[in-house]
Amino acid sequence: MTQWVRFTPPGEATAFGTLQDGQVEAHEGDLFGEHRPTGRRHAVAAVRLEAPVVPSKVLALWNNFRALGEKLGKAPPVHPLFIIKPATSVTGPGTVIRRPARYAGKIVYEGELGIVIGRTCRNVRREEAGDYILGYTCVNDVTAAELLDADPNFAQWTRAKGSDGFCCLGPAVTTGFDWSAARVVTTLDGVERQNYPLSDMILPPHEIVSAVSSDLTLLPGDVIACGTSIGVGSMKPGAAVSVRIEGIGELPNRMGEG
Amino acid sequence: MTQWVRFTPPGEATAFGTLQDGQVEAHEGDLFGEHRPTGRRHAVAAVRLEAPVVPSKVLALWNNFRALGEKLGKAPPVHPLFIIKPATSVTGPGTVIRRPARYAGKIVYEGELGIVIGRTCRNVRREEAGDYILGYTCVNDVTAAELLDADPNFAQWTRAKGSDGFCCLGPAVTTGFDWSAARVVTTLDGVERQNYPLSDMILPPHEIVSAVSSDLTLLPGDVIACGTSIGVGSMKPGAAVSVRIEGIGELPNRMGEG
Repeated sequence: MTQWVRFTPPGEATAFGTLQDGQVEAHEGDLFGEHRPTGRRHAVAAVRLEAPVVPSKVLALWNNFRALGEKLGKAPPVHPLFIIKPATSVTGPGTVIRRPARYAGKIVYEGELGIVIGRTCRNVRREEAGDYILGYTCVNDVTAAELLDADPNFAQWTRAKGSDGFCCLGPAVTTGFDWSAARVVTTLDGVERQNYPLSDMILPPHEIVSAVSSDLTLLPGDVIACGTSIGVGSMKPGAAVSVRIEGIGELPNRMGEG
Repeated sequence: MTQWVRFTPPGEATAFGTLQDGQVEAHEGDLFGEHRPTGRRHAVAAVRLEAPVVPSKVLALWNNFRALGEKLGKAPPVHPLFIIKPATSVTGPGTVIRRPARYAGKIVYEGELGIVIGRTCRNVRREEAGDYILGYTCVNDVTAAELLDADPNFAQWTRAKGSDGFCCLGPAVTTGFDWSAARVVTTLDGVERQNYPLSDMILPPHEIVSAVSSDLTLLPGDVIACGTSIGVGSMKPGAAVSVRIEGIGELPNRMGEG
């Protein structure tokens, strides 16, 4: 298990590297190709962590956990149900989530596991999908919930989930991560609101990657958010929200005032 | 009115430039910033035209023409209803549209006007939206129509419209284009199937750009497909499809065999 991060030391350019024992070690080269340590280390507390990858797109799945599907009375899907969150929606740990200019309704958190693609991926079989996954990260799939049903003829999933800063990623991409034994824990102002086992997933990561890669090409750095489970809730102005998965780390963000 | 194209001369790298009188004139620099003619010209017949821009994302609108909305019995939207077609779906004139590996149903053409964004655009007022539009292009918003209702709980717009090659753009981006007097004409194997006036649009381009820019940030080169009208139909294997808007040009593509 290696933890890859992107980080910005004060007054320096953003770099990538590994996170271990409270230190980041800068690397040079290409995270998705050849790379090597530069020998430079920083205390993680002395740098700003960024979103750990720069995706060309993020796919966000709906109805992929049994507990939530059963609560909503929705049959399990046979193929991933997804929308695209654009690159412009991606943000990292510690940032402030801003309300879109023309939207006054509820904004909700959705703590999720994110699959990070490591290689260009098209029509990949389930058995080989693991070769195309770099690792896993935490996602807060922020959603302007009242837009979903604002038009009676068209569920506005993309608009509701696509705003700038609505795709919080981080803190790290963990390689060789065993998601099947892990849980997603989301807290709001320090109170636990979600705590669900990833083993409750309907379509697991290798199947998701295989199926989605038959629909469209995934590129290195692309992220697939695996969907959320029960406990989704609204974030008030100024609220502190955090998504944590043991083995990946904690992804804290704050809701903007106003 | 200038017509901007991207093109590849035989054995050379892809370049951008202007199209006039059957010739392309190469430019150097940045289409969205400083640029100047290199003095090199090619006959357009001697180069391969590419998608005229390389979008980070394409927004595709639904229910934005009165004639089609009335036919379907759908009330006009008050805000653009859209999904995102990813960058990996973009293709240019003359390419072959391939069937996704796991989909056996109908694949339909949708001839549309495309707005091409020229400057980073966020919370732009309608009155200033024109400053953020580089010009207009033709779009074939290809759709795997039978996926839309394949899951009873979730309309799979993104999956249906997001496959590689499902966003045909071109042949040019025309600046200073008066869309209000133009028509979209789509032919299938030479037979006219769509011929609708852009004046029938419900939300016009400046209003679309303004409204969408309050939802998310648009980047230079991003494209917004304004939605289609009546006459959408299925493309059989090998079918020739073409979307034409006078003042922009003709966007021909072919459906793959099999």
